[in-house]
Amino acid sequence: MNTEDLRNLLVDLQPIPRSISGDGVRLSLRRIEQELQRFAPQVQLEAHEVPTGAQVLDWTVPQEWSLRSASISDSNGNRIIDIANCGLHVIGYSEPVDTVMSFEELLPRLHWIEGKPDWVPYRTSYHSKTWGFCVSENQLQALRNAGNAGPLSVQIESELFDGALTYGEIVIPGTTEKELLLSTHICHPWMANDNASGLVAATATAIALAQQPLQHTIRVLFLPSSIGAIAWLSRHGEAASRKLDGGLVITGLGDSNGLTYKPTRHGNSLIDRIALDRADVHTIAWDPYGYDERQFGSPGFDLPVGRLTRGVHGRYPEYHTSADNLSFVSINQLEASIRSIVSMFRLADNAVIPRRVDGRGEPQLGKRGLYRSTGGAIDHRSPEMAYLWVLALADGKHSLHEIARQSGVSQESVDEAFRRLVEQELIY
Amino acid sequence: MNTEDLRNLLVDLQPIPRSISGDGVRLSLRRIEQELQRFAPQVQLEAHEVPTGAQVLDWTVPQEWSLRSASISDSNGNRIIDIANCGLHVIGYSEPVDTVMSFEELLPRLHWIEGKPDWVPYRTSYHSKTWGFCVSENQLQALRNAGNAGPLSVQIESELFDGALTYGEIVIPGTTEKELLLSTHICHPWMANDNASGLVAATATAIALAQQPLQHTIRVLFLPSSIGAIAWLSRHGEAASRKLDGGLVITGLGDSNGLTYKPTRHGNSLIDRIALDRADVHTIAWDPYGYDERQFGSPGFDLPVGRLTRGVHGRYPEYHTSADNLSFVSINQLEASIRSIVSMFRLADNAVIPRRVDGRGEPQLGKRGLYRSTGGAIDHRSPEMAYLWVLALADGKHSLHEIARQSGVSQESVDEAFRRLVEQELIY
Amino acid sequence: MNTEDLRNLLVDLQPIPRSISGDGVRLSLRRIEQELQRFAPQVQLEAHEVPTGAQVLDWTVPQEWSLRSASISDSNGNRIIDIANCGLHVIGYSEPVDTVMSFEELLPRLHWIEGKPDWVPYRTSYHSKTWGFCVSENQLQALRNAGNAGPLSVQIESELFDGALTYGEIVIPGTTEKELLLSTHICHPWMANDNASGLVAATATAIALAQQPLQHTIRVLFLPSSIGAIAWLSRHGEAASRKLDGGLVITGLGDSNGLTYKPTRHGNSLIDRIALDRADVHTIAWDPYGYDERQFGSPGFDLPVGRLTRGVHGRYPEYHTSADNLSFVSINQLEASIRSIVSMFRLADNAVIPRRVDGRGEPQLGKRGLYRSTGGAIDHRSPEMAYLWVLALADGKHSLHEIARQSGVSQESVDEAFRRLVEQELIY
Repeated sequence: MNTEDLRNLLVDLQPIPRSISGDGVRLSLRRIEQELQRFAPQVQLEAHEVPTGAQVLDWTVPQEWSLRSASISDSNGNRIIDIANCGLHVIGYSEPVDTVMSFEELLPRLHWIEGKPDWVPYRTSYHSKTWGFCVSENQLQALRNAGNAGPLSVQIESELFDGALTYGEIVIPGTTEKELLLSTHICHPWMANDNASGLVAATATAIALAQQPLQHTIRVLFLPSSIGAIAWLSRHGEAASRKLDGGLVITGLGDSNGLTYKPTRHGNSLIDRIALDRADVHTIAWDPYGYDERQFGSPGFDLPVGRLTRGVHGRYPEYHTSADNLSFVSINQLEASIRSIVSMFRLADNAVIPRRVDGRGEPQLGKRGLYRSTGGAIDHRSPEMAYLWVLALADGKHSLHEIARQSGVSQESVDEAFRRLVEQELIY
Repeated sequence: MNTEDLRNLLVDLQPIPRSISGDGVRLSLRRIEQELQRFAPQVQLEAHEVPTGAQVLDWTVPQEWSLRSASISDSNGNRIIDIANCGLHVIGYSEPVDTVMSFEELLPRLHWIEGKPDWVPYRTSYHSKTWGFCVSENQLQALRNAGNAGPLSVQIESELFDGALTYGEIVIPGTTEKELLLSTHICHPWMANDNASGLVAATATAIALAQQPLQHTIRVLFLPSSIGAIAWLSRHGEAASRKLDGGLVITGLGDSNGLTYKPTRHGNSLIDRIALDRADVHTIAWDPYGYDERQFGSPGFDLPVGRLTRGVHGRYPEYHTSADNLSFVSINQLEASIRSIVSMFRLADNAVIPRRVDGRGEPQLGKRGLYRSTGGAIDHRSPEMAYLWVLALADGKHSLHEIARQSGVSQESVDEAFRRLVEQELIY
Repeated sequence: MNTEDLRNLLVDLQPIPRSISGDGVRLSLRRIEQELQRFAPQVQLEAHEVPTGAQVLDWTVPQEWSLRSASISDSNGNRIIDIANCGLHVIGYSEPVDTVMSFEELLPRLHWIEGKPDWVPYRTSYHSKTWGFCVSENQLQALRNAGNAGPLSVQIESELFDGALTYGEIVIPGTTEKELLLSTHICHPWMANDNASGLVAATATAIALAQQPLQHTIRVLFLPSSIGAIAWLSRHGEAASRKLDGGLVITGLGDSNGLTYKPTRHGNSLIDRIALDRADVHTIAWDPYGYDERQFGSPGFDLPVGRLTRGVHGRYPEYHTSADNLSFVSINQLEASIRSIVSMFRLADNAVIPRRVDGRGEPQLGKRGLYRSTGGAIDHRSPEMAYLWVLALADGKHSLHEIARQSGVSQESVDEAFRRLVEQELIY
């Protein structure tokens, strides 16, 4: 995907009215699928539906929410607030309402940001039934003025019904049973950095990684925040505990901040070491808040999944407001983020952690054509050395990356030795 | 207990003729019980009796020893030595004797300290039948002079019989199944620092800790040295291995030395870290000798029990002599010791190590009223953060104390979050 | 064995035509046995035969190879090359040949070292059927000249047949079930440093260690390189995993280099720590190439076996050439090597890692006569302290060596305490 492709995808995904369920998620997945068909047709994006009421770990999948329109009009019928103008105007999961009320009656239902006259905040209420509007300070004043002139007409045409929760999953098969995971949330409406940039970056990374053979199976997840991760983990968490060598949760990748890595709780896994090695990534202290790395890293799963963003949630003023718009996102920054993510996954993919099928003694390499036939002379630069290094350090504690570093043998030779030893069923 | 209460208890406990069995232990426990009834009537001291001959781990409970009188008189009937004047005059567990003998015949039965004309040493012979007297150098000279004048009349009115070994146990219930242990020996007669000060400190600590709710069950033990700990461990050691978060063996807390902590063998348990953090406590190297921390920490139990004293056994000249008397003990020093012990136990009590009931994913806090209903805005000072920190670090490796330190969330908030998560059966 | 004995053994072993199978190995073992009968008649050397075709781990025992004669003669019948003059002239495991050919036809079958006019290289081809000669540059020229004059007569009188692989094993019984291992290869012909010096050193070490009681059973192995170690491990590797406290692979101990230790893969085992403590031993980085430490330390066995040599294989020009002859080996250097090996094994033998039979509480030492009967006085230099240290640190993680170091108690006292505690069945 070139810069123009990335920009087009971002521009298309940004305004889609996503929430943790509903057609906004499905529409976004379909738009992402178009890119895959174009740039990596061999790769499938599967949309999974988890029905309302399904028990997923400690949670229950909520009703599906559909929003058709929402507005506040003055007594003359002029629309002062209209969801068509800004997808954040309605509190996520608002119940339907169609009524006339005074400004004073409406006021407790309004949310705004003080000191930012034009910015509309983003608010949700998934698990507690309510309704409300998010407006700018200027719009608040306009509503107050209109209210002085007469009652306000308030309308939210929404529906809560037994439907499903939708999440998307791309699986790029690798040559081993080991896996890497890339996850982004797909539930924030309208905002360009959080989370349209994450959707674009995950799509572009999947496409880039699909272009060449991989050792790890790459799993790219588009999950409604929290409940989507919980749903996925309830189905696949145990398997992931066995197979996952590492992963990243990504979002917010187009703002002007540098790349920021939040490590796993243990801080010493493969992906942590890869992030620490990068000059373009600044690592911050672990904390328990954030995105779905919270779910992946919960003590019961403890998956080695870090988080990569640029600006950190809540630490830049545009966060969760209408100011997180297309002009807030730089395509150059987003492109640089994607390059870094792809590079980190390539390094992680090299970091297969080899294990001996039967670790007792050295296998006889000669009968497999992996060893020169005439003995007696040895050279530390001999190709056989790569086999010996891999076999001797295949104790489940060293990645190929670490074997190359410790041995001084080139990464290419170590990787090649690994591949041939796997072919010979000596290593897995 | 105020200063005067502590002094009175010390003065009452000091002269009681304790040994590893017998009425001296029972009498001491009864005197301690009076303090509990006065200051913490809700707390019971239970006296346990383990019968003579009972097999306790590698040991056998010895016969009970009762001493009624002991004296050495000159040929005129003048008592030169009388146990009534100093409780250390008879070797502990001496057999009865009633005879007349020359000074030379008596001499092998006499123990004294060279260079300390007025000090009487403390000696015992629990497991090997003998009898003997401990005297000062001046008394030795007086006996020699008397012996020159005529035979000496030697009398020990003691009894060894099948009875029991007595130990005392206070249990202060906490809100969790976790426990903390405070142990002191109750077998040394007459001496004020070792061990009357330990008995006073254990009593006062129990009373102080009983005044406010505790998370841990506190177990305060008054044990005849070695054999008492062995007896207790043979009954409760396995359970303690599962429940015990930490503990202290205490004695010798009223001398002029600073507080001295001997760590557990591993040196990195909760109680070790608490001791290391204290400016008023000096930590020494672990060694295998000492008090009952030897039994608690033996490889087969490996309980995390350290030792707190002021002067270290054998390192101050008054140790195990009649010079360890009431004037050797400063009530101010003893009071300061008690304050430190209580404070260490309060810290350890806060150090409950939480664990998730089901650690997979985050639990849904909202449906339990532990999370604000409107999402979209986050503040690192939000009350919800305490829940997230506790849940995410409830991996069995972090105490609440450590969670507060790592998170920057106040200890109060972390403790409150822990309590509410336990209520919700999310954490235990 | 005195210096003369060592020299005689070296001189006798050097020219024996060893390979990984055949009578050269058997002859070498018989010569070693003579020394044992003379200096340690209580110790047996057992020669084990593993039949051709036996599956040993990933390997198959190859056919036995017997070489009777080998020569290259000019057209006048003058022998230019004769195996009788240098045991390296034939590639190990060469097939029989009896033919006449031109120098040009012969050339691809010839191996030599450039720049070393008089040195003959050492080459083998155990697993791939071929034949060939190793010659010096001068001999190469002589062959070329002879070839110019007429065809060369080439003869290798060898036989490959279903026989056996032979390895030798000396077992010196110790008082415990723990073991130490000393291994050297017995497959290199002719060369004095690699491996006649290793055979001499292993023999002399066995004799020295057999002179006094040992705690560990010492197992001394004379193994055909790789295949011999694989064969031994296939039979004894599992047992060794349980019993082995440490070991050394040795060879190349008579050259002028200092002693060089290659640690185990983990680098922190007993034998590693012993080597690191020695001023006369230089430790190098672990790498996966080398001698049979590769097989012992393979991930599936992971035996704590390091390697001790002087010059490192491949790092000195005489390595695997005819220049590794008797004049290359200094008997003084070899003797110093043996002293160091014996000393390291004595230290390792002291390093029994004691464990409590029942680790709960302290055992009652008094009833076993291991504790003074009169209590009350303690001295940190008391003999009882050694018992307490050993009992308290008998947690399977401390050797007697480490207990002595940590306690400050003399090694003699710690060892004596260990022996008496084993007698009492308190420690094993």
